[in-house]
Amino acid sequence: MKERKLVILLPQFTQAQRGKIAQTAARLGFTPLFADTAEEALRLAPDAEVFFGSAPEFTRAAKALRWVCAPSAGVNQYLANGALPDPETLLSNSSGAYGVTISEHIVMVSLEMMRRQQDYSAIVSQRKWVRDLPVTSLKDCRITLVGTGDIGQEAAVRLRAFSPAALIGVNRGGRNPKNLFDRIVMQTDLAAVLPETDLLIVSLPGTKDTFRMLDARMISLLPDGAIVVNVGRGSVIDQRALFRELSSGRLKAALDVFEEEPIPQDDPAWECPNLLITPHVAGNMTLPYTVQRIADLFLSDLERYAQGLLPERLVNREKGY
Amino acid sequence: MKERKLVILLPQFTQAQRGKIAQTAARLGFTPLFADTAEEALRLAPDAEVFFGSAPEFTRAAKALRWVCAPSAGVNQYLANGALPDPETLLSNSSGAYGVTISEHIVMVSLEMMRRQQDYSAIVSQRKWVRDLPVTSLKDCRITLVGTGDIGQEAAVRLRAFSPAALIGVNRGGRNPKNLFDRIVMQTDLAAVLPETDLLIVSLPGTKDTFRMLDARMISLLPDGAIVVNVGRGSVIDQRALFRELSSGRLKAALDVFEEEPIPQDDPAWECPNLLITPHVAGNMTLPYTVQRIADLFLSDLERYAQGLLPERLVNREKGY
Repeated sequence: MKERKLVILLPQFTQAQRGKIAQTAARLGFTPLFADTAEEALRLAPDAEVFFGSAPEFTRAAKALRWVCAPSAGVNQYLANGALPDPETLLSNSSGAYGVTISEHIVMVSLEMMRRQQDYSAIVSQRKWVRDLPVTSLKDCRITLVGTGDIGQEAAVRLRAFSPAALIGVNRGGRNPKNLFDRIVMQTDLAAVLPETDLLIVSLPGTKDTFRMLDARMISLLPDGAIVVNVGRGSVIDQRALFRELSSGRLKAALDVFEEEPIPQDDPAWECPNLLITPHVAGNMTLPYTVQRIADLFLSDLERYAQGLLPERLVNREKGY
Repeated sequence: MKERKLVILLPQFTQAQRGKIAQTAARLGFTPLFADTAEEALRLAPDAEVFFGSAPEFTRAAKALRWVCAPSAGVNQYLANGALPDPETLLSNSSGAYGVTISEHIVMVSLEMMRRQQDYSAIVSQRKWVRDLPVTSLKDCRITLVGTGDIGQEAAVRLRAFSPAALIGVNRGGRNPKNLFDRIVMQTDLAAVLPETDLLIVSLPGTKDTFRMLDARMISLLPDGAIVVNVGRGSVIDQRALFRELSSGRLKAALDVFEEEPIPQDDPAWECPNLLITPHVAGNMTLPYTVQRIADLFLSDLERYAQGLLPERLVNREKGY
């Protein structure tokens, strides 16, 4: 019988996690092969059936590949031209692993913007003692979350505890997951809710449909003083239009994702006022809990795959999520 | 009949808030007098019966004073020698006005320490793109709140939404307010809970009893990597002992209050690693909601005072809170 090779390229996994994956894979009839570098993985590509990792150079070279599981929620790396040559190759993601860490990021940066943490940081760095900057609060704040998946839901749970005036979800289906939101607005009606939004949280994937959804006109609908938080993909916001509104002082933003990453050295982002930059760290694998979830979610989908079922976190390659 | 003068020294109040206070005061038989500066207030001191503000120079000069309401939660300014010459003068505070804003500060700085925001801020200030700093999370975190009053309770409500492993309250009475905490530990047993604390949140007033409650020995009981957040009074922690543990890298801290404020220019605090300094801003009057609450709480106690009842937020001048 042909060997069914499962290649894992996730150096973040602990020995215990590797052991658990190896054991489950063997039980299900797979040969688990752990690579620590992309080069090492690449040597295993030719006859790999399953790949668990983030390396389009691997999937391009893996001619027998039937399933690739991305450890991320967004899968842009695999949607680019030629990354998955066979249209039949299954693509799944690790949606569900990042809600906890990204929602903590969302609450943190929202409060940092509201409570003027960047200004206070500049003040104490000069050994000054200024205490009277006007601040705002999540209490009684009108919050709109564009994207109500795992990230939007986990954020809603946490933000609810701060007693906001409104917690509105925006999505394409109109469903209110777990009734976490006060109401759901269809994505096509986004313009209607923006004028009543003090805090706008964007957690959309980067797809054709979401490209520059927040363009200059949409951004202009936000009220004065509103805060924009983006933890999805940079392509969702017209960055130059947003920077104009930040430079004028009308809006504030905390961006973890950008149109180009890393941000180019001469990009206006670095000098833009009223902007809190984080280098795409809201949802990476630096939190042990996240790594554990990624392993657990993969193993549950490996069980399904071994039974001939589709992975639960299957990505529609056309839609891009 | 003798005029009953009520002097208000709170320039933060809006015209609407002044109007409401003036109206209620007049209805209850008081003459409301609004001062915008301490000097202005001082001229009104000699025959004032009630003072609403924070100015010990006023209370020292107000020989007919029967009640002073501090707009703060802590009242150290009025406990110092001679600030309230008459031992019969009632002292009340505005406990209940600051829980919302201080609890938001607590969540913000806790997440900033856990998610390495200071490090990432230094990284992006150099236009660098580093993404792999190990972070921790409020999820599964063992949290101990020393002080379970308004601030501790509002913090518990918010922290609960992040799914911590434990939310333990420490107080003197053993009561579990609104059952917000997993369990309550008596203040005398603080040492027993410190070794199991990843995040220690201190919201105690500065009194004789709380002076250096967290001394070198207590601090040494915290596990490696623990985070200390102080939003109460600086006198509760032996600052030099804490700084030693921050300098060694064993602990981290976010301090909003200090033994001496403003922090002296040559204080080691400014250069101390693993320390997030905020200039006593967690609970000041820069949030409009807080100012509104202070006005509302005072008016409800003014109703009581007018009926000959004690203010609900009466401070025990011996205990200091």
